[in-house]
Amino acid sequence: MAVTLAELARRFQGRVRGNPDRIIERVASLESAGPNDIAYLSDKKYLPKLASTAAGAVILTESDASGFAGSALIVDDPHLCFARVALLLHPLPVFKPGAHATAVVSPTARVAATAWIGPHSVVESGAEIGDDVYIGPGCLIGNKVTVGARTRLVGHVAIGDRCVMGEGCLFHPGAVIGSDGFGYARDGEQWQKVPQLGRVVIGNNVEVGANTTIDRGALNDTVIGNGVKLDNQIQIAHNVCIGDNTAIAACVGIAGSTKIGRRCTIGGQAGITGHLEIADDVHITAGSLVTSSIKQAGAYSSSLKAEPAEKWRRNAARLHHLDEMARRLTRLEEKLQQHSEEHEN
Amino acid sequence: MAVTLAELARRFQGRVRGNPDRIIERVASLESAGPNDIAYLSDKKYLPKLASTAAGAVILTESDASGFAGSALIVDDPHLCFARVALLLHPLPVFKPGAHATAVVSPTARVAATAWIGPHSVVESGAEIGDDVYIGPGCLIGNKVTVGARTRLVGHVAIGDRCVMGEGCLFHPGAVIGSDGFGYARDGEQWQKVPQLGRVVIGNNVEVGANTTIDRGALNDTVIGNGVKLDNQIQIAHNVCIGDNTAIAACVGIAGSTKIGRRCTIGGQAGITGHLEIADDVHITAGSLVTSSIKQAGAYSSSLKAEPAEKWRRNAARLHHLDEMARRLTRLEEKLQQHSEEHEN
Amino acid sequence: MAVTLAELARRFQGRVRGNPDRIIERVASLESAGPNDIAYLSDKKYLPKLASTAAGAVILTESDASGFAGSALIVDDPHLCFARVALLLHPLPVFKPGAHATAVVSPTARVAATAWIGPHSVVESGAEIGDDVYIGPGCLIGNKVTVGARTRLVGHVAIGDRCVMGEGCLFHPGAVIGSDGFGYARDGEQWQKVPQLGRVVIGNNVEVGANTTIDRGALNDTVIGNGVKLDNQIQIAHNVCIGDNTAIAACVGIAGSTKIGRRCTIGGQAGITGHLEIADDVHITAGSLVTSSIKQAGAYSSSLKAEPAEKWRRNAARLHHLDEMARRLTRLEEKLQQHSEEHEN
Repeated sequence: MAVTLAELARRFQGRVRGNPDRIIERVASLESAGPNDIAYLSDKKYLPKLASTAAGAVILTESDASGFAGSALIVDDPHLCFARVALLLHPLPVFKPGAHATAVVSPTARVAATAWIGPHSVVESGAEIGDDVYIGPGCLIGNKVTVGARTRLVGHVAIGDRCVMGEGCLFHPGAVIGSDGFGYARDGEQWQKVPQLGRVVIGNNVEVGANTTIDRGALNDTVIGNGVKLDNQIQIAHNVCIGDNTAIAACVGIAGSTKIGRRCTIGGQAGITGHLEIADDVHITAGSLVTSSIKQAGAYSSSLKAEPAEKWRRNAARLHHLDEMARRLTRLEEKLQQHSEEHEN
Repeated sequence: MAVTLAELARRFQGRVRGNPDRIIERVASLESAGPNDIAYLSDKKYLPKLASTAAGAVILTESDASGFAGSALIVDDPHLCFARVALLLHPLPVFKPGAHATAVVSPTARVAATAWIGPHSVVESGAEIGDDVYIGPGCLIGNKVTVGARTRLVGHVAIGDRCVMGEGCLFHPGAVIGSDGFGYARDGEQWQKVPQLGRVVIGNNVEVGANTTIDRGALNDTVIGNGVKLDNQIQIAHNVCIGDNTAIAACVGIAGSTKIGRRCTIGGQAGITGHLEIADDVHITAGSLVTSSIKQAGAYSSSLKAEPAEKWRRNAARLHHLDEMARRLTRLEEKLQQHSEEHEN
Repeated sequence: MAVTLAELARRFQGRVRGNPDRIIERVASLESAGPNDIAYLSDKKYLPKLASTAAGAVILTESDASGFAGSALIVDDPHLCFARVALLLHPLPVFKPGAHATAVVSPTARVAATAWIGPHSVVESGAEIGDDVYIGPGCLIGNKVTVGARTRLVGHVAIGDRCVMGEGCLFHPGAVIGSDGFGYARDGEQWQKVPQLGRVVIGNNVEVGANTTIDRGALNDTVIGNGVKLDNQIQIAHNVCIGDNTAIAACVGIAGSTKIGRRCTIGGQAGITGHLEIADDVHITAGSLVTSSIKQAGAYSSSLKAEPAEKWRRNAARLHHLDEMARRLTRLEEKLQQHSEEHEN
């Protein structure tokens, strides 16, 4: 696709500085961009790179553009504008509707005429596949699953019986939706499985990363709100609820029945234990463990930072005696207090 | 399925209080249950919900039932009874034996007449598939693999050559059994792969969660005992042995050659390093790291709890000087001791 | 395969002590080896096992061999020699070239005559599959993907469009290469996806473990160097670069744009945040979190070790008041200093 810089400005409410007729075909980084590419400045620390970029145009704020001699698309939020320009110039590949000859589609499934079912995918009985849905190779769509319009499964995605996927979602390979929750009752030394009868219900415009797993609810549903973004290898246990527009980085684990608010961000490898409530606009740093409910918006952390191992070993060893150290400190304070009083008398 | 409350009491050694002819068709939560549903009380803190439930009956202990006006199934352990009632009322779907037309089954595989091989599944040479085994869509059963009677692979499960699955097991999508262990010998700057020649041997009544991985042993086998329950995204390295009825929550990693006892519970995201021995009845809290063998039953932990990030940052910064703090504390104690002695003289 | 001990010595630059005509057919552990098996001593602590082994021969250093009565293959590095002997005696199964009848191979893909495409695998348009490549069952090879000679995909591997796999690589089931990076621009309360347009470029002799995920770059590529070894369930975010011969244990997460040097080792469950630079020859202990760049080779850590939970709880509770403790310690030091001065006057 090719558009003029002027056309980009018109579509995305920007202003051209320089050559409005410049033809733009692709987005690229400042370093690799050529004369038909548009780049953007992701951080002021890269300002020096502007001098040497060969980009046909750069998306900039008014102030960052002041020292730049080349053509610029001036906007308030270059990152957001860049994302939109990139979507325009690099649209998803178009697909022909229908089903590959090797797809196995139940006669009782209802598949929209504009949807595509890829090679070796299986769509079981009673499933409903909406308009313009793309189901890539090797997917498994269970009985009575609903997949909303324009949702895209890249391939190798498994969705269990009765789960509900919203519209405009994107699922990456290895995502598993609707596996059983981890629920057992003790039966002497053994574990008696508790059947997991709920569903996973996913809203609109949700992205689910590669090898992320979302368990179905035990009785009620596991619920993922609209606009939620889930990175790779996240584990979401049964009956978790995640509020709209919350973004969760890779390798996070969320235990059963926890409710997470809207617009939260959770850093990579963080863990949240079960049956908690996390307020809206809470931000958890990478690697932290949340073990009690959080009622106030804000940033929370329990993560430590690596230092040279020899030094760390000495500090960590002391940590295992910290309670004793605290008692010694208190005794010292008392002694010194006593001393002072004796001294005064 | 529909049974009377009296019939449930008879099957599960309970006692009816209220209407024994009440028809029960499903299990449900206290909040969502209707007149043909049976619910249970999972925790005394939900006792107030009993007043407003529309459930046809509730599974309760004798004492919890005292203030409840509706029909009740009185048992000693409501959670366990609920699990059994749920299994009775919500049995797994029945399947027809045979193989889907798209399944690829080696002529040298021995598949029981009562087993099912789903669409696009592959069963390689010499594999043995037992009675009433269900292999869902898109599974890979390697050469000479054994799958015991009544075991169920939901779909998208991969089992590598020669591995042995017990009876009555349940495998969720994305589980990988028998991938190579991570074994290399140093060869100058490079790594020389050590062929991984052992198997994975899994006992009876084991559940393996979505995207959990269990590596084959290097020379001897990786062994998972009877009744072990593994949640999603667990990593079990080569030559690990896990004792009967141990339950492991999601995202746990267990390094090579570690032996874990019976009836242990391991919290989510915990890690256990290699070549350790963990006794029976050990409980590891979520997010803890075990780096030495544990010889005594009991609970173990090394996990920290998130607090507001600003406060945490100050505390964590001090931790990186804890060894120095400890030395300062000791010096103070010595000084004060000296002081006291001088004072007395 | 069967060779004499003398032949092994000749191939691997060792020396026979004992019977050079001993026929060796397999490798085995000291405990399980029989008269046609060769074992090795992995650690001096197992020296006592030599007395009772029934192995036909043992690979040993000169000094470890001195007390051993049986046949030995004497080498400088028994572990490395064992790996090579094992590869010789247990070669990968041979495969016939071609494509299974159920494979779906685009007519525009170029597949070497010596390669194999397994059942239910999909090779999309423009892909190039090199000589002697083995693609097991249920793989997905996207458009314009390149797979170098002798690379092996065990099965159930997904490689996204345009990614480049080197020669002699090994991919385990569930590995996902080229999923989208986690990139969004804020758009009010919502997240606007930033299209991920880069590739994943993987060097030669790389091993990728089960269910490991490697995201494609946002604009430029994610790059994995030659000889890199990745265990299971590792997450590598967009634009990460990993230097040659670095080995990463299971469950590690590496955030976006971080560059890791050569010959590093990263312990299981460690995390590395984004936009960092890690030098060559850095070793991170299991469970550590790296949040700033590391410029010096050496070992780094931030991991804690589990202790009995009751004791740990008391220590960890104090940690949440460590800043206050440090201030109290400083005040005490000042007071005592003041005291001493007063005392002296």
